[in-house]
Order: sequence, then structure tokens, then C-alpha cells
Amino acid sequence: MKSYKEYTSLELERELADLEKEYKDYQSLNLKLNMTRGKPSTEQLNLSMEMMDVLNSDVDLTCRDGIDCRNYGVLGGIEECKELLADMIEVPKENIIIYGNSSLYVMYECISRSMTHGVLGSTPWMKLDKVKWLCPVPGYDRHFAITEYFGIEMINIDMDNNGPDMDMVEKLVESDESIKGIWCVPKYSNPDGTTYSNEVVKRFARLKPKAKDFRIYWDNAYSVHHLYDDKQDYLIELLEECRRSGNPDLVYKFTSTSKISFPGSGIAALAASEANIKEIKKQMGISTIGYDKVNQLRHVRFFKNLDGIKMQMKRHADILRPKFEKVETILKENLEGLEIAKWTSPLGGYFISLDTSLPIASKVVDRCKSCGVELTPAGSAFPYHKDPNNSNIRLAPSYPSLDEIAIASKLVSLSIKIESIKYILNK
Amino acid sequence: MKSYKEYTSLELERELADLEKEYKDYQSLNLKLNMTRGKPSTEQLNLSMEMMDVLNSDVDLTCRDGIDCRNYGVLGGIEECKELLADMIEVPKENIIIYGNSSLYVMYECISRSMTHGVLGSTPWMKLDKVKWLCPVPGYDRHFAITEYFGIEMINIDMDNNGPDMDMVEKLVESDESIKGIWCVPKYSNPDGTTYSNEVVKRFARLKPKAKDFRIYWDNAYSVHHLYDDKQDYLIELLEECRRSGNPDLVYKFTSTSKISFPGSGIAALAASEANIKEIKKQMGISTIGYDKVNQLRHVRFFKNLDGIKMQMKRHADILRPKFEKVETILKENLEGLEIAKWTSPLGGYFISLDTSLPIASKVVDRCKSCGVELTPAGSAFPYHKDPNNSNIRLAPSYPSLDEIAIASKLVSLSIKIESIKYILNK
Repeated sequence: MKSYKEYTSLELERELADLEKEYKDYQSLNLKLNMTRGKPSTEQLNLSMEMMDVLNSDVDLTCRDGIDCRNYGVLGGIEECKELLADMIEVPKENIIIYGNSSLYVMYECISRSMTHGVLGSTPWMKLDKVKWLCPVPGYDRHFAITEYFGIEMINIDMDNNGPDMDMVEKLVESDESIKGIWCVPKYSNPDGTTYSNEVVKRFARLKPKAKDFRIYWDNAYSVHHLYDDKQDYLIELLEECRRSGNPDLVYKFTSTSKISFPGSGIAALAASEANIKEIKKQMGISTIGYDKVNQLRHVRFFKNLDGIKMQMKRHADILRPKFEKVETILKENLEGLEIAKWTSPLGGYFISLDTSLPIASKVVDRCKSCGVELTPAGSAFPYHKDPNNSNIRLAPSYPSLDEIAIASKLVSLSIKIESIKYILNK
Repeated sequence: MKSYKEYTSLELERELADLEKEYKDYQSLNLKLNMTRGKPSTEQLNLSMEMMDVLNSDVDLTCRDGIDCRNYGVLGGIEECKELLADMIEVPKENIIIYGNSSLYVMYECISRSMTHGVLGSTPWMKLDKVKWLCPVPGYDRHFAITEYFGIEMINIDMDNNGPDMDMVEKLVESDESIKGIWCVPKYSNPDGTTYSNEVVKRFARLKPKAKDFRIYWDNAYSVHHLYDDKQDYLIELLEECRRSGNPDLVYKFTSTSKISFPGSGIAALAASEANIKEIKKQMGISTIGYDKVNQLRHVRFFKNLDGIKMQMKRHADILRPKFEKVETILKENLEGLEIAKWTSPLGGYFISLDTSLPIASKVVDRCKSCGVELTPAGSAFPYHKDPNNSNIRLAPSYPSLDEIAIASKLVSLSIKIESIKYILNK
């Protein structure tokens, strides 16, 4: 296709008229489609239904070291579950703590604890005049919501194919003591699908923060969430890399089984150095008598080991891959060559990130919504919901059916075309 | 039996010699018994095993209003679970929020949130010079651990058969703005087994706190945990009573199914006024995408309704009642008339609370421990682990077998006798 740049005004006017006719057809379809969140589909949920059978009234609910999982106790998780999730995120099981169903909550709690109690003896952040946080963008809206809730000032950090702009990260972290953390989704990032390069991870591990209580919040949500068998991103394991660099306490790693078993009823975990784990367990011993061990046992009995998880992830990939490919095919068919948008082709994760060339993302999202297709609100992938270029649109193809994805992707393409032309024509 | 007060020194010396011989026999038994915590027994856990069968791979995990419980979402709990727990703690279901497996965590979170964000617009407590808390004593050690963790100054409030000393509570709460809360276990209290009288509850509802952000932390952990069918304590429902008194926002109520289904894998809940619920849900929306709805559904499908819970509690009572009665029988046989100890005869809950007449509780606990019988450490039922009279011993008869309880109760009695005589003789 010819780039819109090469169109005359008249050609653009004609094109717009055609597109608006097409758009009217979509309006008459009375669509009701939701592509806002990275929510697994029913078909994916069905993959874990047998997990509901591994425990029943005939099964002994005692875990490996003789503890009755039904009763109180066991801070930090049962041994076999620690082992399973430690294998998954490539850390020794001594360095992991098992929580409840939400890794987001674990991150929330880490910040909350730092606000009231500091980090390994530092001043509680509530007692400081200013706390700042680095936010690689585009990023995960729920991360930013947490730091915003605590009144932490967020600073945008640009991302490219290798991950965050490390020159900027180093400069800021190493000079400003009020910067206490950075949000990272290092593998198949939300929403770009980027995996941090070896160099980026190594530079993270070698950071020399001005603030002793600075922590990298390493949300490895998509560690095993590949789309392909033969094309997979590789990420250096950061906890060990930090240890090697003499910075063992620098990182909190987060993970969960939310997109492996059931999103609402999975298991979350945190991995960190011995010193960090010790501090967190102290708080854990105050706040609870222990998390749900029966659900931990259920997951272990179902998955058995890392191979079990990997097999499950292949089944997920078989469902997700055609959906991602459908979006990409349709975007390509409709937008390629027009020079009005570019988009990512991730090898894993849950999102395709699209950037319009013109500052029209919010109008595109509104236009889709008017036809009954809900996308993640424009700006969501940025702190304070402010996309400086008004260009980023996050597409979440996991939940809808292939047919629905096709319709939605065409509508997105159409809306981008219409809004681009209107912008060019200053309409 | 004759009171030790009426013994001559010689008689006491002789008695002591006999008792110490008896004590030696216990030492040779190599006991290994744990009565430290209110932990349900294996027999009690077995009562809920069929809960493991109500959900399986053939069962539709959709809840009443069509939501797939396996997926993300639904802050505050599924409707049928809200209904079940709202019925249990006698509040409208609009006033309840369902959490994860630990009500202790819910209390922790309420204090943590108040520290960082205040209460309904008040100054965050971290920004205040001093925060104080009222602690009816003896009370629950884990409550006190939370307030201690946050550096909140705890003030002891005496308890009698009607509940906390309300003259003292009113005087303090109504004059001191730094007092922000009070811990209450209003029914079958831990450890005394006391249920607050109608007058006490009404005076709570009519408190006029100096601090607008003062909250009553009403931990109704034992609301349906009766030991008898025909003898039950009655507690006025505080949320409604507060509303009637024009103080709707005064109370946070907490509950859980920990001692109804599985202690490690139950469901916790909070009930409060609309304004409080709205504030808490705002935080919930930041911190998590929702709690474990599959486990909520499992509980509803198993118990069905409040009658199901009541039936289950009768089965628990049938197991617990003989254990409580065994403790009381043996204490009576061994200590009655000696005037060296008194103890409670609760109609519900998980504990018997014993007070020695002399300041010897810590020595009694140590002496039992030397024989392999672990009791809750002396002082545990008081803030900072400081029992001003060194007299309170908490007995937790739920977990051990009847035989074990008999042995432990005899050993406790024996140890109290020995330590009382030694104290009197100044040995």
C-alpha cells in the first residue's frame, strides 16, 4: 500500500469518505467485545480443570515433610511448592516465599512495608519528603497505580528493543537518593513484548544506587509464557547476576501461576536474597499465620514439576498463538505501508503493543468503543495515564475468539486510518 | 481440699516433697505435647474433607451471577459467598468484603492502610508523633504483635465477666486524640472466653472518640463457636448498634472460616459501614485483581447456608466439648479449695484462661516445658508480653487428644502447686 504521506488532499478526502462508510457498517453490527485486559480465555481455563481432581476427600493432604496442609502454619510455603516455583523462576528454593493468589498484592505489600518500615533498616519512606520511582514506558498500568496510590513520584524511562534506556536509569539511580525503585517486566514485557537484553540485565545487576534502600521490582510475570517452541526469548536470571556483582540485595523478583493455572486462584511468589527474605518473613510472621497450603499442594500435585508447567504452557501457547497471529495478519493487511502505525510481534506474553504515528491513540480507542469494542484506555501504559505522544494502544488478544479478534483488529485498523486522515486534514 | 493458706510451714514442706517426687515421675515420661495454640485437631479437620469433593473437573465453576470463578476479577467476593458470611456475622451483604485465607491479615492491612493513608481522609498515622491503642487484657497475642510492629503504643484495659472496663475505655477514647483503636474479641474472647454484655456493646456503639479516625477492631473470630447446644452466649450485633447510635463508621468487624472449615485454607471477611467499605475497596482495587473465588465457591457449595455452618459447628463442638470438660475436671480435682488458682469455664471459643493467685505463671510454664509439655508462653496474652501480675496461663485444649489433655492438665496443676508452695516458702 502507498503511504498516506504520498496521498493528495483530495485522495485523502475520498479515502476518508470510503472508510467512514465502512465504519458505519461496523456500528450497525452492535458488537460487544472486550479486549481491555490480559485475561486468559475459557479454553485456557479448561486446561487446568483436572487440577480440581487431584485433591479430594480420599487424598491425604499431608505434604512431603509431614505437615497437614489443612491446618494453620508454615510461613513461606510448603517445601514442594517452593521447589516448583523456584525451579520456574530459576532461583534456589531457599530464596523464595510462597504467598496467596496475587503477585500484584506481593508487590503492593513490599512497597507498603517500605513506606512504614523502610528496607533493611533504612528510614521508612513515609518519613521522607519525597520518594521517586522509575517507570519504563509503556508499562503495566497496575504497577503504576500502586506507586501512585502511595504518592510516589513516577519518572518515565524510555524502552527500546533491548529494554529500558540504561544510560538514563544509571544516571538517575546513581545520583538521586530519593529514587527507591523501578518497575520492570523483563520478559515478554507488558505491553511491548520486549525481553531485556543480556547487556541490560547485567547493567541492572551492576547498578550502584545512591539510595541503599533502592530495589528493582522484577515482575517476571511471563517467564514461561512463550508463544513458540522454536522461537523463544532468553532472559538472564537477575538474582544470581546481582549476587555475582556484589549486589545481592538489589532485587525483588515476583512471579505467579495466574496465567498458568487459574488467574483468580493461583499461587504467587517472591524471590530475593537471604537478607531480604529474612526481613519479609519477619513481617509475614506478624501479618498472617500462613497462606493457603491446600492450594499450594493442589498445584504441586497437578503440575508435579517444571516439566509439567512447561507442558501446560505449550497447551496455552497452542491456543494463544493463532490469536496473536490473527491480529498481526490483519494489522499487516490493513495498515502495512501506510506509515501511520507500527506494532510489535512478540514471541510470548499477553499483549501486542501498537503505536500510531500521529497523536491519535485516544481517539482511536474512543472510536472503537463507539462500535462496542473496548480496548485498554489510551494512556493506560503510562504513569498518571499520560501518554506523552498519545500514540500507544495495547491489544490484548487472549480472551476473545478468533472471529472476534478478526473483527476487532479490522475495526482498530479502520479507526487508525480514519483518525490519521482526519488529523492530517486537520478535521 | 484445704487452702494452702491454712497449711503450716512444715505441712507445706512435706507437701512440696511429695509433689516434687510426683513431678519426677512426669519427667521420666518423656512427654512431647503442644498446647500453645488454638489449633483444631485432625478429627476436626476431617469434618470438612467433603469440601474437597464439591468442586471437581465435572463441576461448572460459574457462580450465581454468571462469573467464571476461575478467571480474574470480582473485588470484594462473589455474591453467594458474601451472603453466607454476612449471614454468619449478622450484617447486610452490602456491608461485607471477602478476602483471602486470613482474617489476621485483614486486620494487619487495615492498620497498615491507616498508617499510610489515614482513615476516611484523616492524617496518615505515620505522620503523627504518637499513635496509641487500647488492649483489653488478657487478649490475643497476635493482635498485640501487629500494633507493636507498627510502633503503636499499647495501653492495657482490664477485663471482667462483662468485657472491657468501659469507664476506662470511655475516659481514654473520649479525651485522647492519639488513641486510634481498640482490639476486641467480643464473643468467647481469647483467652478468657468472655462475651461482652449488652451494656458493654451499647457503650461501645455510643463512644464519642476524640479522634475521628478511631476504629473498634471487632474480631468476631468465635461468633458461631459454641460448645453447648443449650448454653450459649449472646452478643449484640455492633455494626447495626453503631448505626442506631449515629456512629455508623466506628467499627471494623472481622471474621473467618478458619475454625469452621480448614484453618489454613478458609475465607476471611471484613464488615463495615458503606463509607468504610468504599475506602477499603479503593485500596483493594489498587492492591489486587481479586481474591480466590474458586475457594469462595467451594465454601458456598459445601456449607450452602448458615444452617450448614451451624450443623458443622455442632460437630466441632462434639469434639471440643469433652476436651474442655476434661481440663476443667482435672483442674477442679487438683486445685479446688487450695486458693492458688482460678480458671474460666467458657461456653465457646478455643481457650481456658487460668490465673494463679501468686506471681508464678512464667515458672509454671517453664516447669511444664521441662517435662515436654509446651504451653503458650507466660505473658503472651498481654502487650509486650508483660503480664503485670505474672499470673495468666492460656490453655488451648483443641489439638491434643483427651489422654494428652489429661496428662497436661495434671502437670499444670502439679506445677502450680509446687511453684505456689515454693513462693510461699520463699524458696
